[in-house]
Amino acid sequence: MSLYMGLDIGGTTVKGIIMDELGNISAEDSIPTVCGEGLADCCAELADRLMSAAGIVSSDLTAAGLDCPGMIDSRHGKVVFAGNLQLKDYPLAKIIKEKLGVKVRLCNDANAAALGEARFGAGKGYRCSVLVTLGTGIGGGIVIDGKLFEGFKSAGAEIGHMVIEKNGIPCTCGRKGCFERYASARALEQYTRKVMADDTSTAMWKTYTEKTATAKTPFEYMDTDATAKKIIDWYLRNLACGCVNLANIFRPEVIMIGGGVANQGSRLIDPLQKLVDAELFGGTDYAPVKVCVASLGAKAGAYGAIALALR
Amino acid sequence: MSLYMGLDIGGTTVKGIIMDELGNISAEDSIPTVCGEGLADCCAELADRLMSAAGIVSSDLTAAGLDCPGMIDSRHGKVVFAGNLQLKDYPLAKIIKEKLGVKVRLCNDANAAALGEARFGAGKGYRCSVLVTLGTGIGGGIVIDGKLFEGFKSAGAEIGHMVIEKNGIPCTCGRKGCFERYASARALEQYTRKVMADDTSTAMWKTYTEKTATAKTPFEYMDTDATAKKIIDWYLRNLACGCVNLANIFRPEVIMIGGGVANQGSRLIDPLQKLVDAELFGGTDYAPVKVCVASLGAKAGAYGAIALALR
Repeated sequence: MSLYMGLDIGGTTVKGIIMDELGNISAEDSIPTVCGEGLADCCAELADRLMSAAGIVSSDLTAAGLDCPGMIDSRHGKVVFAGNLQLKDYPLAKIIKEKLGVKVRLCNDANAAALGEARFGAGKGYRCSVLVTLGTGIGGGIVIDGKLFEGFKSAGAEIGHMVIEKNGIPCTCGRKGCFERYASARALEQYTRKVMADDTSTAMWKTYTEKTATAKTPFEYMDTDATAKKIIDWYLRNLACGCVNLANIFRPEVIMIGGGVANQGSRLIDPLQKLVDAELFGGTDYAPVKVCVASLGAKAGAYGAIALALR
Repeated sequence: MSLYMGLDIGGTTVKGIIMDELGNISAEDSIPTVCGEGLADCCAELADRLMSAAGIVSSDLTAAGLDCPGMIDSRHGKVVFAGNLQLKDYPLAKIIKEKLGVKVRLCNDANAAALGEARFGAGKGYRCSVLVTLGTGIGGGIVIDGKLFEGFKSAGAEIGHMVIEKNGIPCTCGRKGCFERYASARALEQYTRKVMADDTSTAMWKTYTEKTATAKTPFEYMDTDATAKKIIDWYLRNLACGCVNLANIFRPEVIMIGGGVANQGSRLIDPLQKLVDAELFGGTDYAPVKVCVASLGAKAGAYGAIALALR
């Protein structure tokens, strides 16, 4: 029986699992993230706890996978730069490899989530999938023929920073009109608040103000309030625009939508699928692209780290 | 000595070459394209001519590669649909395989050009490259780790149909604001003619009218006429916008620009590289993306067909 460990390093917690090659999980735990050079010790402590819970020692492991936010050089297992973790040129995979004595692979957190969903989640059974995660920005990853696509020095797959409106809304990256300025959860929240500020007659004011409304607010009111419906239509068209771009470029079999907004389920996916189908290059007969909700939620990263170890 | 044949099927001619594994070409010829079911016989005739020129018979070949415009199922070697060639569900690779008695691979012409440039042209020595061909539309292809990326059923890599301006200029594909509506050679020609029609004082009228101006016209006048310079600036910003999108998504080591507009050389590439560098995600220090002119011109397809056979 081969056993694998996956550690998903986030800004506040590190989540870990131990899984066998059949997908059975024998341990699952988490630990608060230690920023800076102490990160490796913190990961090692979680690894010890996981192994103790699973009743194994490190020599029982076949391999381990790690993922972490920031700019990662996955080929050399190095954190090139991770602002929130206060790390720069940090050979994380090498340090953990020395601690565990097994092969260790490292990749970016968004890419790990895409790999996790592709291998164990909504993308299972498909050869090519794209994950679009709607949060503060838009993250994502691309799996081609079962393999993670990361680009030169793992710096690709920045799908949130694809301009869909030339000279549009300024983005944190320095460009104007990026996909994430129009279709992230934050973009939806900001647009909702702006519309509410401009239109005090909308029913959304019954429960929310232009300071308390969130990305959920227009979904909550879309069946009863025309303004909320208009906001959702605006949002869906933007999301569809970026998804069709990705579909025409990658032609994946499936586009998986993750992040809190995806909790809307069919209220989001059904109209999105229609909009994507209507604009897909060459139509939907020959090579249709399915749109669906990502299924692993906050566990996608840890599963992806396992998938990385399994490689 | 292994010998390979590459046939590049275009709307008017089929171009063919025979090459050994060291890159030496022993025959090169072309034949007018026969549309419809007669295409295979026409390819076979060119193959015979090439083999006779090289002084070989078909059993001397190791493999052959074919490329062709239209929707191609490269996995099954089939032309799914090619309007200009009047073909539908045509098992071209299988027919040629029966005629030559060797392994035959088939792909789309834009993808073949990208593979040709990656293997034998401007992308030689790079692991990840993107070809952007500026013509009537924008074609292109993506090579990842030396392998052609085609997407589900070879229907991906439609980089010209990535929207860069939501609700922008209507495109032949049904979308609005596609990259090719702003950065193809035709887009440049159309914009030049429009500007000339609106501004009869521009120096371009000395030689051209709003009916005879082409994509070359503004380049010809850009050093002496402010209006021509403005047109080129507009065009370069559009081209850079799409190229940065592709750079952020694929993070290739090199983006190669092909098509007639690329003949402008450094007049196009130098300012384009500056614009790309200025907007590249995360800057240029860690993983720079080089912009250059594609080097194989009209031969990219035939070289790509060889590369396909070499696979």
